[in-house]
Amino acid sequence: MTSLRPTTGLAPYDPRTVSMLSFVAAVPKFRDGSDTPRDYLERCLATIEVREPEVQAFAAIDPATARHAADAATTRYKAAAPLSVVDGMPVAIKDLFDTVDLPTQKGSPFFKGWNAGRDAAHVYALRQGGAVILAKAHTTEFGAGAPAPTRNPYDLSRTPGGSSSGPAASVAAQMLPFSSASHGRGSGIRPASYCGLYALKPTYGAINRGGADNEAYVTGHMCTYAGTLEDCWVITHFLGRTAGPDPGCYGFYGPANIPAAELPRRLVRLGMAGWAETDDASKAAFEDCLGVLEAAGVTILGANDDPRIAAYETTLKDMTALYQGIALYDYRYPLSSYRDRDPSLLDERIKKGLEWADGYTLDDYRIALDRQARFKAQHSALAGLADGFITLSSKGPATVGMDSGSAIYNESSSVLGVPAYTLPLLVVDGMPLGVQLQGFCDGDALLTAYAGGIAAAVLNFEPSERSSSAP
Amino acid sequence: MTSLRPTTGLAPYDPRTVSMLSFVAAVPKFRDGSDTPRDYLERCLATIEVREPEVQAFAAIDPATARHAADAATTRYKAAAPLSVVDGMPVAIKDLFDTVDLPTQKGSPFFKGWNAGRDAAHVYALRQGGAVILAKAHTTEFGAGAPAPTRNPYDLSRTPGGSSSGPAASVAAQMLPFSSASHGRGSGIRPASYCGLYALKPTYGAINRGGADNEAYVTGHMCTYAGTLEDCWVITHFLGRTAGPDPGCYGFYGPANIPAAELPRRLVRLGMAGWAETDDASKAAFEDCLGVLEAAGVTILGANDDPRIAAYETTLKDMTALYQGIALYDYRYPLSSYRDRDPSLLDERIKKGLEWADGYTLDDYRIALDRQARFKAQHSALAGLADGFITLSSKGPATVGMDSGSAIYNESSSVLGVPAYTLPLLVVDGMPLGVQLQGFCDGDALLTAYAGGIAAAVLNFEPSERSSSAP
Repeated sequence: MTSLRPTTGLAPYDPRTVSMLSFVAAVPKFRDGSDTPRDYLERCLATIEVREPEVQAFAAIDPATARHAADAATTRYKAAAPLSVVDGMPVAIKDLFDTVDLPTQKGSPFFKGWNAGRDAAHVYALRQGGAVILAKAHTTEFGAGAPAPTRNPYDLSRTPGGSSSGPAASVAAQMLPFSSASHGRGSGIRPASYCGLYALKPTYGAINRGGADNEAYVTGHMCTYAGTLEDCWVITHFLGRTAGPDPGCYGFYGPANIPAAELPRRLVRLGMAGWAETDDASKAAFEDCLGVLEAAGVTILGANDDPRIAAYETTLKDMTALYQGIALYDYRYPLSSYRDRDPSLLDERIKKGLEWADGYTLDDYRIALDRQARFKAQHSALAGLADGFITLSSKGPATVGMDSGSAIYNESSSVLGVPAYTLPLLVVDGMPLGVQLQGFCDGDALLTAYAGGIAAAVLNFEPSERSSSAP
Repeated sequence: MTSLRPTTGLAPYDPRTVSMLSFVAAVPKFRDGSDTPRDYLERCLATIEVREPEVQAFAAIDPATARHAADAATTRYKAAAPLSVVDGMPVAIKDLFDTVDLPTQKGSPFFKGWNAGRDAAHVYALRQGGAVILAKAHTTEFGAGAPAPTRNPYDLSRTPGGSSSGPAASVAAQMLPFSSASHGRGSGIRPASYCGLYALKPTYGAINRGGADNEAYVTGHMCTYAGTLEDCWVITHFLGRTAGPDPGCYGFYGPANIPAAELPRRLVRLGMAGWAETDDASKAAFEDCLGVLEAAGVTILGANDDPRIAAYETTLKDMTALYQGIALYDYRYPLSSYRDRDPSLLDERIKKGLEWADGYTLDDYRIALDRQARFKAQHSALAGLADGFITLSSKGPATVGMDSGSAIYNESSSVLGVPAYTLPLLVVDGMPLGVQLQGFCDGDALLTAYAGGIAAAVLNFEPSERSSSAP
């Protein structure tokens, strides 16, 4: 396996020593005058100058406008009147989402240089809050097809994962403290796992997806990428409350500040269909992680402990078919319309998915929606048994090459609409690998408390007590 | 009241003698070679040349491309291989919806000359079926603000209604057999009432709204405008099955051919909050219509006949507040983003709505969604009592001036998501006035059978037996 390390001489990846950007931690310095949003931006731009040529996270970038926005934020902090918790924060926007100034190109030649004429809902929310919209971050083609040119910042020969490739790489390379992303199938959780990020896919509909190529898909969610758990929560909360929910949804629940870390009492360990495909080193790292949690007093439950869990695991085994039934039928529009216009401009991956959807009928879709409803009921029923669910975020670390990777650990939360975190707690093959937590709908805040408890337990565990497959 | 009659010397409006375009009726002639889609289009273009200068229905029109598409359809009919029931049909698209070729301007200077880069889902469906996408039809600003320049074809001094102003006027002026429209509040049913059209607002989500400025609003629906009930049904069915549903919805139910006309046994007469505001002539015309139906054997039930109807009417009295609570909160995105960019480019009507929404919280929205759910349950419970609901489609005929008119008769079906028809059965002040039928969710086909039965009963009733206020 060739491994093309970054040219900048980063230390080997270790989640306990890696120093990720935090915007939340910078704000007190903006308030006391020891730092400014403009200086913060300049540091980001300096990192971008070094890392972007090899990482290639951005489809478009506008430093001049960003500097202007950062100066305005600087003035507001000096006047002790910042607009919000994100005032002055440099951000990248996943390029599936509309921006009124930067082009929105969706990873597709169909939209080369296209101007959306408006901001997506979350972009508008960030702008209202004073955030600095610095760049559009590469997506795979329409979030589903040809890979982005982006590389994994920890090993340039590997994928950053997709479809949120640029968003994940930009935060992992410490070029930015935050990027928006989205999650359908594995688009949000998987790249964050490959790139060592904290990512939250909140409850379905909690952040308005308006202003995207695919804004109403049943399996689609906004997703947020940050370098720390606190940044992830604080900014997600801001977006949920400012952008508001998807129409018809009840929106984001939880406090503005991060809930205090707390260990869950009981977690269901999900095997997923992916366990059989998972490499031994990743399996061992995950077992070590569960061992640490059990030692800390968390009860880990599995299919042998309760027939409801066994039944749930049986449903999970069929998740790819259920996911495809719902998602690919939704994908027919607009992807089929692009195919009809010029199939030569569309990647084979998308055409293959559309061929599958062509054989799928409205009646099939109705049956899939009924199955989704039953699966949701099956999930909710486990709330009487445990506090949440734990599994890997991907079936191993990022693979060599630009393929987006397997979504086999990510389909179920897309179908259920439950909140999911990936936490950067494991190291396999010198690369980050995420631990995934799933909760119950609208339980994003409690899941965050558990995420904090679990991250602290695993990261503070004495290395001498650990097996060689974990850091 | 000044009345600026059309310059082309149309006969006074009478739904029993008016000769509306039908595309369904033309298809057999395409098949037997006595007519062609190209000739059909040329007749439409000839009418457009005469009527469009005074009606101003179109924001953009492309006869050259349309002729090319009509020729292709002509070739297919000659080969006995039409693509679908809409092959060769000239259509207009409401200008809130994306089209890849014609500009999408949304009735707003923000989008002057803007290209959407793609087709909306229903536009793509029409294109797949061989329809001739001739024009974009004027919408009020973002479907909510400044009026379109369009005039009512039956009296140029009056509004055609809004927001689907151009769609309604284009079909009413017999420039086209069909136009797409949309319905939130009164945007679909009201203009069709003012312009003497058959219009169906199908069950919520039955036709994919993808590719619009506001594609996921809780109260938003596609709506279809035609000159005959059969055209309305056949084309709506085609769109429902080809465009597919809104993501997560169960889609359109019913046969491809129009269900046989049938009188309902029992109808609930809805007073709505609008009855008190309705002029005497419109009240009299509606009472006459009910009288004809009762004479034909239909039992008309009201609030005095059952406490469930009385309770339902009580809910209806508060419908404007409930509608606003849901819809204006949804409208914040994207309308607020336009306001922030340049308030001088946004009409006062929209800014006033946004001011109202600014005082509305996420918690208010959640309460409104709960109330919507209870109202839906209240509606469904009446299925054990009657076959459907009858009321006026608007609180009178089109008013003089360009104001879109009151939506007081239209809010409830927007909130409920139930199918609704307007039928062009009444004449008041020499202008069309629609009778509205509402059904139960997914009962579009049965509602169509009743629409056919009711239209036949009213239109075939001997004039000598009628009072002077009906035709």
